[in-house]
Amino acid sequence: MARVVVDVMPKPEILDPQGKAVTGALQRLGFAGLAVRQGKRFEIEVDGEVTDERLDEIRRAAETLLANTVIETFAVSVETQEQAAAQGQPA
Amino acid sequence: MARVVVDVMPKPEILDPQGKAVTGALQRLGFAGLAVRQGKRFEIEVDGEVTDERLDEIRRAAETLLANTVIETFAVSVETQEQAAAQGQPA
Repeated sequence: MARVVVDVMPKPEILDPQGKAVTGALQRLGFAGLAVRQGKRFEIEVDGEVTDERLDEIRRAAETLLANTVIETFAVSVETQEQAAAQGQPA
Repeated sequence: MARVVVDVMPKPEILDPQGKAVTGALQRLGFAGLAVRQGKRFEIEVDGEVTDERLDEIRRAAETLLANTVIETFAVSVETQEQAAAQGQPA
């Protein structure tokens, strides 16, 4: 069972009201000098091996469903076992 | 200007209705054998240098505001310039 991660973020030229709200809330809580943009993270457990064909399929899935490519960019990465283990607990 | 990424995911034992909906939609679209969990990705532009103190501050911000640690885990990572550049275009 391998894991592929798709990160989806609003394009730089697109307004990000969620991120703006988080940035404002952080400032009010006393965390200054942080500008936040908020996106989505999809962790995908893949049956079997992650071949190049499988990755292409996941890229198509990201384009079709996970990201709205008019306003969002996405990045696909294969997560190593060590990264998956680290993800399990707060860093 | 450095960038720190906070990834927030539902804990493994917590139901993830969004992820379930995406998994079902992928299957209906013909993408089989993919199980998705959906979380959030925060990209934080930090004024000045990312010191250990600054990272501790961001971890506190993540615990306080970005993640609900009852049901979510989070991971903080510093993004290198190369990763930031790669993020700009679909992988």
